[in-house]
Amino acid sequence: MNNQQKTMEKIVALCKGRGFVFPGSEIYGGLANSWDYGPLGVEMKNNVKRAWMKKFVQENRYNVGLDSAILMNSEVWKASGHVATFNDPLIDCKACKMRHRADKLVEDFNAENNITDVNVESMTSEDLVNYINEKGVVCSGCGKHDFTDIRKFNLMFKTHQGVTEESSNEVYLRPETAQGIFVNFPAIQRTTRRKIPFGVCQVGKSFRNEITPGNFIFRIREFEQMELEFFCEPGTDLEWFAYWRAYCHDWLKGLNVSDENLRLRDHDAEELSFYSKATTDFEYRFPFGWGELWGIADRTDYDLTQHMEHSGKDLSYFDQEKNQRYTPYVIEPSLGADRMTLALLVEAYDEEVVDEAKNDVRTVMRFHPAIAPFKVAVLPLSKKLGEKAMEIQDMLSKDWMVDYDETGSIGKRYRREDEIGTPYCVTVDFQTVGNEEKGEVADHCVTVRDRDTMEQVRMPISELRSYLAEKLAY
Amino acid sequence: MNNQQKTMEKIVALCKGRGFVFPGSEIYGGLANSWDYGPLGVEMKNNVKRAWMKKFVQENRYNVGLDSAILMNSEVWKASGHVATFNDPLIDCKACKMRHRADKLVEDFNAENNITDVNVESMTSEDLVNYINEKGVVCSGCGKHDFTDIRKFNLMFKTHQGVTEESSNEVYLRPETAQGIFVNFPAIQRTTRRKIPFGVCQVGKSFRNEITPGNFIFRIREFEQMELEFFCEPGTDLEWFAYWRAYCHDWLKGLNVSDENLRLRDHDAEELSFYSKATTDFEYRFPFGWGELWGIADRTDYDLTQHMEHSGKDLSYFDQEKNQRYTPYVIEPSLGADRMTLALLVEAYDEEVVDEAKNDVRTVMRFHPAIAPFKVAVLPLSKKLGEKAMEIQDMLSKDWMVDYDETGSIGKRYRREDEIGTPYCVTVDFQTVGNEEKGEVADHCVTVRDRDTMEQVRMPISELRSYLAEKLAY
Repeated sequence: MNNQQKTMEKIVALCKGRGFVFPGSEIYGGLANSWDYGPLGVEMKNNVKRAWMKKFVQENRYNVGLDSAILMNSEVWKASGHVATFNDPLIDCKACKMRHRADKLVEDFNAENNITDVNVESMTSEDLVNYINEKGVVCSGCGKHDFTDIRKFNLMFKTHQGVTEESSNEVYLRPETAQGIFVNFPAIQRTTRRKIPFGVCQVGKSFRNEITPGNFIFRIREFEQMELEFFCEPGTDLEWFAYWRAYCHDWLKGLNVSDENLRLRDHDAEELSFYSKATTDFEYRFPFGWGELWGIADRTDYDLTQHMEHSGKDLSYFDQEKNQRYTPYVIEPSLGADRMTLALLVEAYDEEVVDEAKNDVRTVMRFHPAIAPFKVAVLPLSKKLGEKAMEIQDMLSKDWMVDYDETGSIGKRYRREDEIGTPYCVTVDFQTVGNEEKGEVADHCVTVRDRDTMEQVRMPISELRSYLAEKLAY
Repeated sequence: MNNQQKTMEKIVALCKGRGFVFPGSEIYGGLANSWDYGPLGVEMKNNVKRAWMKKFVQENRYNVGLDSAILMNSEVWKASGHVATFNDPLIDCKACKMRHRADKLVEDFNAENNITDVNVESMTSEDLVNYINEKGVVCSGCGKHDFTDIRKFNLMFKTHQGVTEESSNEVYLRPETAQGIFVNFPAIQRTTRRKIPFGVCQVGKSFRNEITPGNFIFRIREFEQMELEFFCEPGTDLEWFAYWRAYCHDWLKGLNVSDENLRLRDHDAEELSFYSKATTDFEYRFPFGWGELWGIADRTDYDLTQHMEHSGKDLSYFDQEKNQRYTPYVIEPSLGADRMTLALLVEAYDEEVVDEAKNDVRTVMRFHPAIAPFKVAVLPLSKKLGEKAMEIQDMLSKDWMVDYDETGSIGKRYRREDEIGTPYCVTVDFQTVGNEEKGEVADHCVTVRDRDTMEQVRMPISELRSYLAEKLAY
């Protein structure tokens, strides 16, 4: 099944029905586009984060980790430019009072009219207003062309720390994890005694007060990022950009994301941020169209320089080998954990015809084993076999998340595990335990079924752990 | 070294110096008592969370996980009682304008005067004011007794979702993760097809606008919780309370928290919340005194009932076996991840006299292997052995976080690893690789040094992985 045949409707239904993702605050009518990860979703998303940490920190000799606070001193966001420029251009329809993002309005208009040569991202508010008026773009709500001026709306959530609500104790929920890395650069360099080049990885929540969140967990207000800021010597930055661009691509391929659903879009000069020397967007083919998954940017020394100027602290680096002081350049691969989770849900989704004559189709989530919420399910053929089955579950639970299911026919249970992407099912039957009274000898074997091939092999319980360890290795 | 001999000063210095914990937003002068977890801290804290998830979800057949959003519909906090009653009693000194928490003022007064028979937690605002006046409690800032009335200050951080700052779009940063579990109870029960009794575990950030945060990462405004809400049949609740009380105790012991530093304090009738049938506080002996680590409470059907009444939705459970519908009772063990991390830092800290004559003392963090940031360090005796050493590092990195250190004498490097609690050091020497030119045959062996005993064993590289796997198992 290719991605064009998949629908968000089916994927969302599976997520809600099987406990991957629930609407947030559902019993109170929800909270606009907020989502909770259910029992399977939390395992899957944790697996995504773990797979990233494993390949980007544990197995990569350049990088270390960090977990900085969500609430930071407001000066951080003044220095980074977020207070002044992290805005959405809002425009209201005077006729029906519907509120729009002006850039979104233009993008939708262009998409409808097959206009592909306009770079909306590089347009200023003035450009947007002029374009809307020239083209006679209309409100998607009422169809009229009667808009207010553009008003800039800052996307940072604001709160107050302390007893009084004064501007002096305003704090923001961070809109990205990256700045936590920049301001800690000197402390990390000093305490780890790392030499440049080295990188700092962080996984954590960020918040953006989006006007138009949507597409399930693709664009949400409270989201989780996995960001790497890689510090290198100026002049070596484009080499490292290429290194990380390839490394990120390999990571995706290593989790079975096919190149057919992936597009690496290099920004041209016009689209580049003024401080960036190179940027590549990794886009994924979602059922609703191509969407950004991973942004990889050469940010030069922009961020460290901003913080040096604003804080008055020295964030430069002294290269002992070269006897030279410089401000490091930064390569930033920035990935959304929720988007990545959604991409892997889409990638894994499959409907397979098992028996055409019987119109028998199974839904199967073909997750990479490292991503699957449960690695194994233990299924006693009869409830009478529960004791032995639980013993096996307990043994395997030391290493993996193990499901246990004793209700319904075995075929039905296999299908339930297929639908949540469990790579292996271990079936315990009467031969496994034997029956002394009837003189039937226990064979101490179980049947292991492979999710993808549906093939079954019988093996001694004593070999189960090493068999699975090999299959499940990441 | 026992806990009374340990000081916060030394532990904080080690944390800052080695990259466990940094002051938040440090280059901007910080943000009152906010902290960032550095390269070692993030590994350690993740290990704490993983150890909890492993024993409470992966290896426990009753529980499943959840990851609900921080921003929830405000109705949740009205139903839970947080909007109305989650307050601190503030009192200002009229003379010097210093602000106090009235309950804290009384607690400090009692501690100084060895008054141990007053239960401050159960005092109302009126009780507090009367007590302060009767006893002539004075301001800790200026020493005068001249206070304002008590004013209640809600501890929830408030922000606005959407463009305008109106009360209609006020949202709170959750002050606890527990409510995310209660409101998802029906969805989780339905999608997992679980029968009662079962529990839901959640790890995540919570926020409380504390007036007097302090004691390093013990009381912080942005903190992380590990909460379990265990749903059971009314009447079986006290049994399950005992089960989880023992389970939590075992978990702590399993991570080498000694009973000598632990106090299980059962609340008496007067101290119990009105809805609770039983509560036990697990307190840890920190260098600044006993502090609450884990609260375990029988919350009866209080929370689910509140949400049923407030949402109008049915959150009861139908027990098929008993053919009976009831509102489950809840046992809640609630643990702070930051406090747990601090307790484990304190517990691990040791100064050991290695050679009295030479006045040689080593600082060693005696972490349980499951908690140690690095499990192994690979140390080439000379930089010339780097190739072999990195090969070994790469091999071990598939399974564990591995440090690599090639600078300074080997003795110095051992001490550096002791100080960050790395359980094993693997030393690569010239015998390991041999020297063809000199006719010295490689023995393909390395020396493995144990952090605690400082004993060294030599073993073939091929046996290293299984040796460590056995030692590091959790």
